[in-house]
Amino acid sequence: MIYFNSDYTAGAHAKVLDALVRTNLEHSVGYGLDPYTAEAKTLMREAIGCADAEIILLVGGTQTNATAIDGLLARHEGVLCADSGHIAVHESGAIEASGHKVLTLPEYCGKVRAENVDRYITEFYRDETCQHMVAPGMLYISQPTEYGTIYSLEELEGLSAVCHKHNIPLYIDGARMGYALTAEGADFTLRDIARLADVFYIGGTKCGALFGEALVVTNRALLKNLFPLVKQHGALLAKGRLLGLQFGVLFRDNLYERICGNAVRLALRLREIMRKADYEVVIESPTNQQFFRLPNDVIDRLRKSVSFDYWGPRGADSSIVRFVTSWATTEEDIEEFRRVIIP
Amino acid sequence: MIYFNSDYTAGAHAKVLDALVRTNLEHSVGYGLDPYTAEAKTLMREAIGCADAEIILLVGGTQTNATAIDGLLARHEGVLCADSGHIAVHESGAIEASGHKVLTLPEYCGKVRAENVDRYITEFYRDETCQHMVAPGMLYISQPTEYGTIYSLEELEGLSAVCHKHNIPLYIDGARMGYALTAEGADFTLRDIARLADVFYIGGTKCGALFGEALVVTNRALLKNLFPLVKQHGALLAKGRLLGLQFGVLFRDNLYERICGNAVRLALRLREIMRKADYEVVIESPTNQQFFRLPNDVIDRLRKSVSFDYWGPRGADSSIVRFVTSWATTEEDIEEFRRVIIP
Amino acid sequence: MIYFNSDYTAGAHAKVLDALVRTNLEHSVGYGLDPYTAEAKTLMREAIGCADAEIILLVGGTQTNATAIDGLLARHEGVLCADSGHIAVHESGAIEASGHKVLTLPEYCGKVRAENVDRYITEFYRDETCQHMVAPGMLYISQPTEYGTIYSLEELEGLSAVCHKHNIPLYIDGARMGYALTAEGADFTLRDIARLADVFYIGGTKCGALFGEALVVTNRALLKNLFPLVKQHGALLAKGRLLGLQFGVLFRDNLYERICGNAVRLALRLREIMRKADYEVVIESPTNQQFFRLPNDVIDRLRKSVSFDYWGPRGADSSIVRFVTSWATTEEDIEEFRRVIIP
Amino acid sequence: MIYFNSDYTAGAHAKVLDALVRTNLEHSVGYGLDPYTAEAKTLMREAIGCADAEIILLVGGTQTNATAIDGLLARHEGVLCADSGHIAVHESGAIEASGHKVLTLPEYCGKVRAENVDRYITEFYRDETCQHMVAPGMLYISQPTEYGTIYSLEELEGLSAVCHKHNIPLYIDGARMGYALTAEGADFTLRDIARLADVFYIGGTKCGALFGEALVVTNRALLKNLFPLVKQHGALLAKGRLLGLQFGVLFRDNLYERICGNAVRLALRLREIMRKADYEVVIESPTNQQFFRLPNDVIDRLRKSVSFDYWGPRGADSSIVRFVTSWATTEEDIEEFRRVIIP
Repeated sequence: MIYFNSDYTAGAHAKVLDALVRTNLEHSVGYGLDPYTAEAKTLMREAIGCADAEIILLVGGTQTNATAIDGLLARHEGVLCADSGHIAVHESGAIEASGHKVLTLPEYCGKVRAENVDRYITEFYRDETCQHMVAPGMLYISQPTEYGTIYSLEELEGLSAVCHKHNIPLYIDGARMGYALTAEGADFTLRDIARLADVFYIGGTKCGALFGEALVVTNRALLKNLFPLVKQHGALLAKGRLLGLQFGVLFRDNLYERICGNAVRLALRLREIMRKADYEVVIESPTNQQFFRLPNDVIDRLRKSVSFDYWGPRGADSSIVRFVTSWATTEEDIEEFRRVIIP
Repeated sequence: MIYFNSDYTAGAHAKVLDALVRTNLEHSVGYGLDPYTAEAKTLMREAIGCADAEIILLVGGTQTNATAIDGLLARHEGVLCADSGHIAVHESGAIEASGHKVLTLPEYCGKVRAENVDRYITEFYRDETCQHMVAPGMLYISQPTEYGTIYSLEELEGLSAVCHKHNIPLYIDGARMGYALTAEGADFTLRDIARLADVFYIGGTKCGALFGEALVVTNRALLKNLFPLVKQHGALLAKGRLLGLQFGVLFRDNLYERICGNAVRLALRLREIMRKADYEVVIESPTNQQFFRLPNDVIDRLRKSVSFDYWGPRGADSSIVRFVTSWATTEEDIEEFRRVIIP
Repeated sequence: MIYFNSDYTAGAHAKVLDALVRTNLEHSVGYGLDPYTAEAKTLMREAIGCADAEIILLVGGTQTNATAIDGLLARHEGVLCADSGHIAVHESGAIEASGHKVLTLPEYCGKVRAENVDRYITEFYRDETCQHMVAPGMLYISQPTEYGTIYSLEELEGLSAVCHKHNIPLYIDGARMGYALTAEGADFTLRDIARLADVFYIGGTKCGALFGEALVVTNRALLKNLFPLVKQHGALLAKGRLLGLQFGVLFRDNLYERICGNAVRLALRLREIMRKADYEVVIESPTNQQFFRLPNDVIDRLRKSVSFDYWGPRGADSSIVRFVTSWATTEEDIEEFRRVIIP
Repeated sequence: MIYFNSDYTAGAHAKVLDALVRTNLEHSVGYGLDPYTAEAKTLMREAIGCADAEIILLVGGTQTNATAIDGLLARHEGVLCADSGHIAVHESGAIEASGHKVLTLPEYCGKVRAENVDRYITEFYRDETCQHMVAPGMLYISQPTEYGTIYSLEELEGLSAVCHKHNIPLYIDGARMGYALTAEGADFTLRDIARLADVFYIGGTKCGALFGEALVVTNRALLKNLFPLVKQHGALLAKGRLLGLQFGVLFRDNLYERICGNAVRLALRLREIMRKADYEVVIESPTNQQFFRLPNDVIDRLRKSVSFDYWGPRGADSSIVRFVTSWATTEEDIEEFRRVIIP
């Protein structure tokens, strides 16, 4: 069986696992105050080109979003987000559970447009009754988006500019950041992300770690008292070194981008195979998530040897499906898929 | 100056005020345990035809919505609502502040359609990932709506049926209930409301009281421990008798519907005057709120002797405006308006 | 029957009620933007000697505490409070409902000591694990306290100094402020309160108004975006002028202190009567609340013509009872009480 | 250096780590729906003797407490807890952050007494003003306690009985459950715990796992809709199998109790060494945490080769220190400690 269900179905990259095994019997102080975490932060600060960024290592994505957004917003503020955004749809109301409204904007291929953000905020404050409404207190975007698409450098510059024009922070959900940085046609670097966002996170769970997300705060004035905030959200890992060890490995010698880049390369090859087989590519995704429309009989046949998921409900004759590669996908997986798809 | 800005710009109906003045120096036990409140509840239970309904008297509308919805929803649930609904737009995020997402449905003249509620819930539970989403835990509608329109008895029956089919409560925001009950073409009574909704409130603030909203719980199993819930929401009035006195007056001899019915009658006459003067009626509202498109020069001229508000931003040549009558509007107000509009 | 149950059992002072009646049919803009509210604020700013204080008029005490404390604290902070404090005991968890811990200090006659506040905060930050604990983010005191006692000017100076030394705000719950200002031996003025507290409220409900509390923010940097905060807490009264009118009357010609001072004078006379009758005065209260231990048979006899409440459970032979005077108490009430107590 | 700082300073037991390594490249469905998690639940249900218990695997202790308590309490309820309880002191207000008050009871060696629970609840409902107070909605205890002590079977029976008499659930925080089950003199089993508690958790983080806590719900009617509750608390691990794998190993062949029992045996030997060296044993703890008073010069000398923490502030001449053993402590560690302590 070849697996294309998601990028969190396997464990961790071998080097990450090795580090955990190698250090297993060492004793470290807890809560991220250990030397491995310190080292990881140093490596990450270099990678993002921001020596005084605050970095906190958390366990999971929803947890990281909920903690950061709760910390960034004032009581009366909400978070702007594409209506397809993860926090708007798939986090079981974790943002609202900490008291904040998700203010949705229309999505275009999973992205929001700077002009829409600008118009929303401008019209909001022009409305006489805006005091009775939820003020837009920050912008959330995901890079890559939930649809596998990416914002170009120009688009990121535009969003950053409009946020700062209106004096709200730009927050980037980077659950799959590694696959954005190495996407087909990506014209930005992690340094650009760090320069343009006020707060963002670099995903580990889907990018080679067993688990873990690195929350990066470049605009440190915005997120104070992070430690109790994290603890209060139940997001403080006792054995914090487990996170430090993993991010240390991933950010040494650029392993993070190398393994994600490989996944993207294989995803694009898979797309090429699908195109050659004349199947419709539903979203033009340059990253490790690919979306196709397949006849139902093809889906049924494929599923005997390939594991993947529907994207939405099964249709009458054909359905949209999602194929995801990861750091764990191999050349052999793709070659075998090629043999299966064209019988 | 004639006032059509809103139905909460004047004080209280004379009889309501008289009751407050007459009893002013009496001493009563606090927190709604006084005999005036008991009497008001008896009168209201008769009016709604439900002898064992729980009734709690609160101070304001947002407060009542936030308290009731917080009490009705489980932690993981959200409230379905038209995207024009008051709780979705104009309550400063009070629903989210108590932890719940507002799940919006498209509005048609301010109303939601039973078929859309049905489809939303059905598709929600059909979605494999619904556990990661916010479950629809109740339906909120306003009667009349924010646009002055009303649900017909058939529509109410349909919404009630779809809610109970899916085992969620129907909640009705009746901030202007008096104007719905007496609307042009209204084919339902307060008893129908009580029979079809699980929880609803009868607005006092906009319908003859100084302030006050009566929260009615006909399905008592749904809202337990109301007292601490109300207190926790800061919604418990120390001198609870002030609320009991007011609702007692309003529900004696049907005063509530009589004074609201008069307001509706005058609003319809005002609409007739506008129609005769060839001004566009923007929304077909059968209640005390009327919406017109007027040329800006007419607006500017009118405003010298008539007070009313824009509905949205001022346009280039013409603008939409709202005229609201209330229990305080008089025949003379309308006749004077007629003289002003046709100079 | 003479009533000494509480200071919120009657309606409003005649002048307050007159103002409501006189202006009843006027039309005003809502939400506290009306001229009566503006005038009341001007009068109150004069009374407190702070021309640029922010003043917001709310409806009730728990509501005011919950709103102000929620606005003052950061997410990770709690509020220091005497363990007998109203927010610690009798607000149904309203503070916790908005996410904050009440950090209790031992009470002495209902009061906290500056040295205890100082020690608590100093030891808190000395503790290595303080990041895992709830940081003291503000101090709450009530003046007068729940036991009718008052802080002297020196005590207030001390508490203010220790708060500002540790950079946290001092908040004063003044539900019965009028009775503190006119207490036997009171050596402070409203100007002192305004100078020493960062935020406080001047109670109306128990001091001559039908309802209403005036939240005063002298340190305006601490409480921003008050409007949506108030709205979100369901604390925004539609007909805000009702509050403005009442506080306008109370703060014209010093009515507020005059009527409360009268209540205090009568309470002290009642205490004198009790002392002469050889009944134990349980708490040395200089304000309108008085606490006595009475034999149960005396209680039973008194209750035929005097209404008052137990303070705690009824004892085997004797019980502690509370007598409260108010602006509504008359000389005749006290004289009649004298006749009843000494049969 | 020998380490006695805590039981979460090392990684995981070798067998646990092996399981993670062995399965690393397998693909599994996420969120705990994988076969490893199913197997772990089966093993745990056998161990607790409750075939239909609901079990959810979470990441950390504060997270588990916050999630379970939030799910168990109604809006208006608080949680009873010893004033030394972890949720009362060291969770940064996570309980309050989800809206609930921690109602403290006096601790005796870290424990609460059934009679005090009984009295608290009885007196609460006897108080006329209890509607204005936070209702006790559940009891939280930790087994072992924060001081290393344990409740006997009789004490547990007593607490369970008093909870069920008053119709509130008993919740047990078992962060160190393995060390309680194997404590000196422990007269209860995991089956007793499951029989007497309504909800409890079996700690993994401190008992041989890399991380992970198993939340067990034996009274399933109490905690419904766990999945979205967990997700909303940011507590849903994407690669849920990591938790299943670890608990599967720990509950196969009783590994959990064997490794914890070894730690307890070594802790008791360490205590014996201290006693022989004439150092004061501060708390009579039968588990893996031991507390001693040592002269400061001894502390300073020891610290050159032994790592351990102060328990509270350093004293003038002597200080209280805590020594903690774990599954990772070896016979050699203890023997070396013996050589160091008696030079």
